[in-house]
Amino acid sequence: MRQLLIVGIGAGNPEHMTVQAINALNRADVLFIPTKGEAKSQLADIRRDICDRYVTRADGRIIEFAVPVRQTAGRSYDASVDGWHAAIAQSYERLLLDELGPEQTGAFLVWGDPMLYDSTIRIVERVRALGTVDFDYAVIPGITSVQALTASHRIPLNLVGKPVQITTGRRLAESFPGLAETAVVMLDGEQAFMAIDDPEAFIYWGAYLGTPQEIILSGRVLEVREEILKTRSQARARHGWIMDVYLLRKGADFDA
Amino acid sequence: MRQLLIVGIGAGNPEHMTVQAINALNRADVLFIPTKGEAKSQLADIRRDICDRYVTRADGRIIEFAVPVRQTAGRSYDASVDGWHAAIAQSYERLLLDELGPEQTGAFLVWGDPMLYDSTIRIVERVRALGTVDFDYAVIPGITSVQALTASHRIPLNLVGKPVQITTGRRLAESFPGLAETAVVMLDGEQAFMAIDDPEAFIYWGAYLGTPQEIILSGRVLEVREEILKTRSQARARHGWIMDVYLLRKGADFDA
Ligand SMILES: C[S@@+](CC[C@H](N)C(=O)[O-])C[C@H]1O[C@@H](n2cnc3c(N)ncnc32)[C@H](O)[C@@H]1O
Ligand SMILES: C[S@@+](CC[C@H](N)C(=O)[O-])C[C@H]1O[C@@H](n2cnc3c(N)ncnc32)[C@H](O)[C@@H]1O
Repeated sequence: MRQLLIVGIGAGNPEHMTVQAINALNRADVLFIPTKGEAKSQLADIRRDICDRYVTRADGRIIEFAVPVRQTAGRSYDASVDGWHAAIAQSYERLLLDELGPEQTGAFLVWGDPMLYDSTIRIVERVRALGTVDFDYAVIPGITSVQALTASHRIPLNLVGKPVQITTGRRLAESFPGLAETAVVMLDGEQAFMAIDDPEAFIYWGAYLGTPQEIILSGRVLEVREEILKTRSQARARHGWIMDVYLLRKGADFDA
Repeated sequence: MRQLLIVGIGAGNPEHMTVQAINALNRADVLFIPTKGEAKSQLADIRRDICDRYVTRADGRIIEFAVPVRQTAGRSYDASVDGWHAAIAQSYERLLLDELGPEQTGAFLVWGDPMLYDSTIRIVERVRALGTVDFDYAVIPGITSVQALTASHRIPLNLVGKPVQITTGRRLAESFPGLAETAVVMLDGEQAFMAIDDPEAFIYWGAYLGTPQEIILSGRVLEVREEILKTRSQARARHGWIMDVYLLRKGADFDA
């Protein structure tokens, strides 16, 4: 049977690669590398660098494939993502049928950890549901951008014994600062931190984490949010793209 | 100046080690390994195995040290943890002064990732605040038990675009199933999942993740909770200890 490995490659630093992930890449006859358009070609470079550094078997093939673009016009968010996943599932199905022999192993390189705001697992499940190609698969965890963020800031994710909310820019207002003592915000296209006006809230922000361009900033939200906004837009203009993530915190380890 | 490296070593599988963590252990003149009493000596074995496999420099010293025990009698939870951290900070201070030369590098091996329900970072900050020993430090991320759990179950952490709550057994009732679509529960000494009686809730449970004893179970909470309870208590009796973590989920990727 065909085997698929969904391999987390870490969030920017090639040294995030685990021994398990390195072994998985070397077990694969074919490595599937998504390319997501020109702007983020640095991300494709990091994926290639990882293959160059760590793949020691000489006969592994690398297949780069373009990920279909999400269509949003005239669709709800759910319908848009659902249709997009269906399109990606079709492209995966073709890759498996065309590029992988019936007894071969293929690996998908996934940014960060495949479990965190990534749809490779769900899309692979869709391909299985199509029933047109027989395969089994395994998931290999990878260091996430959240871990790169907390490591660079040298902060714990949680306050002692307290919960943490991981959320998106769109959903931040529901939880912080009202309900959560700690919120981690990913996929924030609208700089939701600008709307936080609680004087007790702190922010730990990071962009391009793990890469040579890494930037981190932290402080009271009210004192640093303008600087983050400016730094973010300048960096984005300079590099042509940006990925950033941040942690918001209110309260202390021990209640006084 | 003395350098400290707080190194995440993954959550049970030695192959969770990252290249960055392996390099950090080899940069250290001294490796500090906590031992937490007899029951969990398998965890100490995993730490030793990691040093055996990955430390290639011949002159690194390994110092095992006993972590002070938390005193709970007659204290609030906060006071008990606070006092415990102060005691650990004192033992770290001694280790740094006694075992590390003024220009040397030491590494603390931390289970999983140091940012997740672990106090090594905060305790190292306490040692700095004591002002008695001059040092700088860095944090190296590691694969967490949450990632080991989702990888073994081959599930995404979050539903599409939706938030996730990471919490403890003691605080679970506040968030799930009321507020959170996904909750991850750690440090659960009281099997808080037994109190969930929502017929729509699913559980993905795992114990000894990443180790040869790994057990995973999943299904509707109401259908599998008794089996998890029984499996858990049998495994605990057999091994003399247990570490388990689980994910609770309600709802779907796409709203119908
Ligand atoms: C589609 S999600 C994928 C997350 C990935 N699976 C992970 O484990 O981190 C992309 C989001 O992750 C965050 N992100 C990923 N890599 C990052 C990096 N190197 N620096 C900052 N943020 C990053 C950003 O919030 C970005 O919007
Ligand atoms: C003090 S916390 C430390 C967590 C660790 N820093 C991490 O990154 O996973 C200990 C809790 O983590 C979870 N845990 C850690 N390792 C585990 C494993 N191998 N299998 C199952 N649960 C684990 C359990 O919930 C346990 O109560």
